[in-house]
Amino acid sequence: MKTLQVALAERSYPIHIGAGLLDDVDLLRACVPGRQVAVVTNDVVGPLYAARLTAAFADRQLDVLTLPDGESHKTLATWGGIHEFLAQRGHHRATTIVALGGGVVGDMAGFAAATWQRGARFVQIPTTLLAQVDSSVGGKTGVNLAAGKNLVGAFHQPAAVIADTSVLATLPEREYRAGLAEVLKYGFIADAAFLDTLLGSVSELLARETNALTQAIERSCAIKAEVVAGDEREEGRRAILNFGHTFGHAIEKILGYGELLHGEAVAVGMVMAADLSWRCGRIGKTEAAGIKAAVAAFGLAVERPASVDTGAMLHAFGMDKKVVDGRVRFVLANGPGDVEVTADIPEHLLRQTLQTTALCEQDG
Amino acid sequence: MKTLQVALAERSYPIHIGAGLLDDVDLLRACVPGRQVAVVTNDVVGPLYAARLTAAFADRQLDVLTLPDGESHKTLATWGGIHEFLAQRGHHRATTIVALGGGVVGDMAGFAAATWQRGARFVQIPTTLLAQVDSSVGGKTGVNLAAGKNLVGAFHQPAAVIADTSVLATLPEREYRAGLAEVLKYGFIADAAFLDTLLGSVSELLARETNALTQAIERSCAIKAEVVAGDEREEGRRAILNFGHTFGHAIEKILGYGELLHGEAVAVGMVMAADLSWRCGRIGKTEAAGIKAAVAAFGLAVERPASVDTGAMLHAFGMDKKVVDGRVRFVLANGPGDVEVTADIPEHLLRQTLQTTALCEQDG
Repeated sequence: MKTLQVALAERSYPIHIGAGLLDDVDLLRACVPGRQVAVVTNDVVGPLYAARLTAAFADRQLDVLTLPDGESHKTLATWGGIHEFLAQRGHHRATTIVALGGGVVGDMAGFAAATWQRGARFVQIPTTLLAQVDSSVGGKTGVNLAAGKNLVGAFHQPAAVIADTSVLATLPEREYRAGLAEVLKYGFIADAAFLDTLLGSVSELLARETNALTQAIERSCAIKAEVVAGDEREEGRRAILNFGHTFGHAIEKILGYGELLHGEAVAVGMVMAADLSWRCGRIGKTEAAGIKAAVAAFGLAVERPASVDTGAMLHAFGMDKKVVDGRVRFVLANGPGDVEVTADIPEHLLRQTLQTTALCEQDG
Repeated sequence: MKTLQVALAERSYPIHIGAGLLDDVDLLRACVPGRQVAVVTNDVVGPLYAARLTAAFADRQLDVLTLPDGESHKTLATWGGIHEFLAQRGHHRATTIVALGGGVVGDMAGFAAATWQRGARFVQIPTTLLAQVDSSVGGKTGVNLAAGKNLVGAFHQPAAVIADTSVLATLPEREYRAGLAEVLKYGFIADAAFLDTLLGSVSELLARETNALTQAIERSCAIKAEVVAGDEREEGRRAILNFGHTFGHAIEKILGYGELLHGEAVAVGMVMAADLSWRCGRIGKTEAAGIKAAVAAFGLAVERPASVDTGAMLHAFGMDKKVVDGRVRFVLANGPGDVEVTADIPEHLLRQTLQTTALCEQDG
């Protein structure tokens, strides 16, 4: 087991990464003090792993709430149901809420923990690659409205993250690859050497080879922890973690939440961001094409879905939460491992990126 | 105008208290920067005062959401409606949400601000005495579940509180007296001299005489600001502000939210707390009777409503949010201006307090 630390003064917490951690009863119990535990999971993950927690906390009050799987359920209604459940089972302010699942479960359980009696203890046990390398770390929680993703939420740091890499063996291929998109993101935004390592071990990663995968998760979490520690509430640099997300969120919103996996939308979004970076003169065409090739190497789609048109994208940006006083912010590439947040995009270049059918390859 | 400061490092903010502040355009504009303003009010207060804000911000995007009046509407559904409204009107993360109303409006608008895009700027313009002296200061926000008051919420400090004492002139008598209950509370918990001042000016206060009332509001806010600054998230001393609230919340829950005003329930709750303090040997019978007489002097009911029985109260305590690992916490009086939080109450004494029909006067 490797343990990283997210350094946030009195809100600091460990990220434990390793194989078989769900069977490590001592670790689980150390992360969950108190006599009440509420486990929030979904109908895919719960049947596989919830029993491990029930066994580890046999001497406590442990209640399991199983939500329907999928981004389309990440709503105020589902989240309100978590609160009704906590009230029905008599959970006190001193309870611990444990998220056992992917990003959707983590976002909703975390937002419930942020707001249960004005803030309860929260532990993340992410079971997808995307959740292990991204959404479980950093304290962003929330739910979607019809108008946009994560429009309602809170910053609420977990007390611990337990990433058991063993559970990734049974992850569906599509979800696994969507997670690799976020792993690649860390290379693009912060670490050119890591990007080289990833591109040098594509086949090992696609085969889920333990060493390559564990190292990719550790490095991803280390980058995220470092960025979050420097800017917890995204007042500055943390926004670099949104590379590909302005485009990606718009695509998710237009297609309807759940049509594409979040990582799949981010994958296309990163290629669109590379295309826009090239059009803005920040990187060369070869470099933009390299980002596209890297995404493609991990089996991810690299073109905007045909049903998503320019007008819909521009409309979607109008209510993207990254808007500051009416200007849309994008994270653009300046070079390998180097990106920058900017709201200063010539609209005609943005339109070229939205209109082209061959990103990073032709002029509009 | 008098300005007090709530000292919370980077979350510090001013409380402005004075007559006619709603007409002070410069003050209003200084407290609400940015180009978007969302005013949340109710159907009693909005028609009286919302136009002042519309006029003050004629050059900005200002949207007014009018909620139905009353504690029974302090629900997840009403709060979710605030978010839908913000999304429909295209409010960004940089918007300012202004609560114009009493405690219910402030709690819901504040919780919406806490959670809109993970945290938006929030300004309190309290229009009831209770909100001016208590709920608008300190950052507690939230909504009720059927199972209990404020079970879902967040700590989210306002950027400013603007307490215009002129608006209290038209406050219904019942609401005004309910507010005086919280004013009295500050005397009971923290300031014997202030309590003497209040008891020496009962007729002036009941007549809403400007000087007496303004001084009472200032001293109440100063005490609250000092307590909150020392313990923002109620990990210790802040709980003394809940004097009378464990009993009061239970009564409100049993009768149904909105049957009694919050201050009315707290008034009875403080007399019950005095009774229990006496039974626990913390204060003498004369002192307990003095607390009861002080509450009665301000025209507030001092006996538990006949329809609220002991069993219902004990049941209600079971899901009171002040429970820590199954033990109910009470704030008990040790003497004038001196209280203490304790979970160490002999159950037979608690039952005597719940059963007596003459609080602070007979033995059970």
